[in-house]
Amino acid sequence: MTPFEAKLNTVAKRTETLLEQLLSEEARPQEVTRPARLAEAMRYGALNGGKRLRPFLVFESAAMFGGDEMAALRVGAALECLHSYSLVHDDLPAMDDDDLRRGKPTVHIAYDEATAILAGDALLTYAFDIIAAPETQIVDRAKIELVLALARAAGVGGMAGGQALDLAAEKQAPDVHGIVMLQAMKTGALIRFACEAGAVIAGASEDDRDRMRRFGEIIGRAFQLADDLLDLTSDAATLGKAAGKDAARGKGTLVALRGQAWVEAELDRLVDEASALIAVYGERAATLIEAARFVANRKA
Amino acid sequence: MTPFEAKLNTVAKRTETLLEQLLSEEARPQEVTRPARLAEAMRYGALNGGKRLRPFLVFESAAMFGGDEMAALRVGAALECLHSYSLVHDDLPAMDDDDLRRGKPTVHIAYDEATAILAGDALLTYAFDIIAAPETQIVDRAKIELVLALARAAGVGGMAGGQALDLAAEKQAPDVHGIVMLQAMKTGALIRFACEAGAVIAGASEDDRDRMRRFGEIIGRAFQLADDLLDLTSDAATLGKAAGKDAARGKGTLVALRGQAWVEAELDRLVDEASALIAVYGERAATLIEAARFVANRKA
Repeated sequence: MTPFEAKLNTVAKRTETLLEQLLSEEARPQEVTRPARLAEAMRYGALNGGKRLRPFLVFESAAMFGGDEMAALRVGAALECLHSYSLVHDDLPAMDDDDLRRGKPTVHIAYDEATAILAGDALLTYAFDIIAAPETQIVDRAKIELVLALARAAGVGGMAGGQALDLAAEKQAPDVHGIVMLQAMKTGALIRFACEAGAVIAGASEDDRDRMRRFGEIIGRAFQLADDLLDLTSDAATLGKAAGKDAARGKGTLVALRGQAWVEAELDRLVDEASALIAVYGERAATLIEAARFVANRKA
Repeated sequence: MTPFEAKLNTVAKRTETLLEQLLSEEARPQEVTRPARLAEAMRYGALNGGKRLRPFLVFESAAMFGGDEMAALRVGAALECLHSYSLVHDDLPAMDDDDLRRGKPTVHIAYDEATAILAGDALLTYAFDIIAAPETQIVDRAKIELVLALARAAGVGGMAGGQALDLAAEKQAPDVHGIVMLQAMKTGALIRFACEAGAVIAGASEDDRDRMRRFGEIIGRAFQLADDLLDLTSDAATLGKAAGKDAARGKGTLVALRGQAWVEAELDRLVDEASALIAVYGERAATLIEAARFVANRKA
């Protein structure tokens, strides 16, 4: 394990512990008003052993600007609830109809469809609860800005809209421009939010916030390109889900349209661009620059 | 039309106009990043000609404490987006499987299931956007409190949890206590939020806020009892949906368990209790007292 991977692991574990605690609180097993099956399905959907890349980006962006660690972890956990909701709903029969996620039955398979819809709804809702709660100790203004930025990253102009375009893409394959836009919305918006959120938590300047948004946009693109490469070159065991699925569905990817060599060169270019953008922060940017490289070169 | 009904109508129209404007902004037809079909489905789900009772309660509660009208209308519109999301998801085949809502095809019938799931998700998300947006001109603290209270009214301990209990009730009918709890969560939580929100918008005292929460709880109970009576005594034309459905599904209602006479007496009692609670505000409480009576006696 590289020192970078050790850092990523540490934040993933702290996020997992916090999510575990937050979702136990939300379940409140002693209160009959918390339906146990729904609360379990929320836990099942959110505590899934992911890499917790988005919380890591929140954490390291906040750290670079001297933001509060605990607040960053809480916002990271909120973001992960929101990300988990999107996976639970995307997997539904009416959407991507996936039975497996990270090698485990998806929520509607492990429970049932109604419970999966409601668990997704409740995780989405809980993300805003976590940010607004008194335990997230940042100034009110920062909370409002996080709520607003998260709602916009998740809404019709962000992740939900991206998923709608993705479903439409199965019927009519988009061109290169269409694919880039779809991916910027579907996966890019939350990654951009993660990087921006660190700056907001730390009360950084408007300029810093803008720069972190752009940094997030670039690594969001790299994340998706790496994903497309993995879909093409990995087997199901590595991915924990069916491989070659996007291609089989006729979904256009940039790998299919532009070829693997172009994508690999583009990934290098994006890492350089992201690194150059935050080089202005000197040594403090080192971990985020490694994160950009990690996102582009990840093997799973 | 009584003077009260005229007031209700006026706020409903202002809410409708504002929702129309907010959902047009959210759609931004000039931007390709807003998938048109999804944006249309959101409009279809939210602009459905309802009575807009919840926004009316926000508006009148805010008015009683001297809160800003425009802020109250915006929070009412946000609440209506959230209420609409719950209807869109509740109607889905995996949930209540309803084809009609207010005499019109439900969203998954008019569009498709995936679009209905996403439209619900996007309406839920947009509710938080509207509250946090700069155009909602209240102090930051009040916004945070509204976000938090709304998330809790909608989450696993509120509306989403109530819907989970409601689905479970089809398999095993709950007792009187179970029904009261289920209804308090499923429909009561948002009505309570509406009444509380007015006090928050106006910056009323903690005591006033508590009193308005209790007022909301009581009229929420009355709302649900009136609904159960209507389900039993109305025909489909009046309801705009299938009548006698709850009974046919074997869902326990208090009307079935306690009888119509008991329910009618309980409704009178609840109106008295609600009125007594806010009598402390004197003349300013007159409209809300009429609202309590309206909720208990409504015929559709």
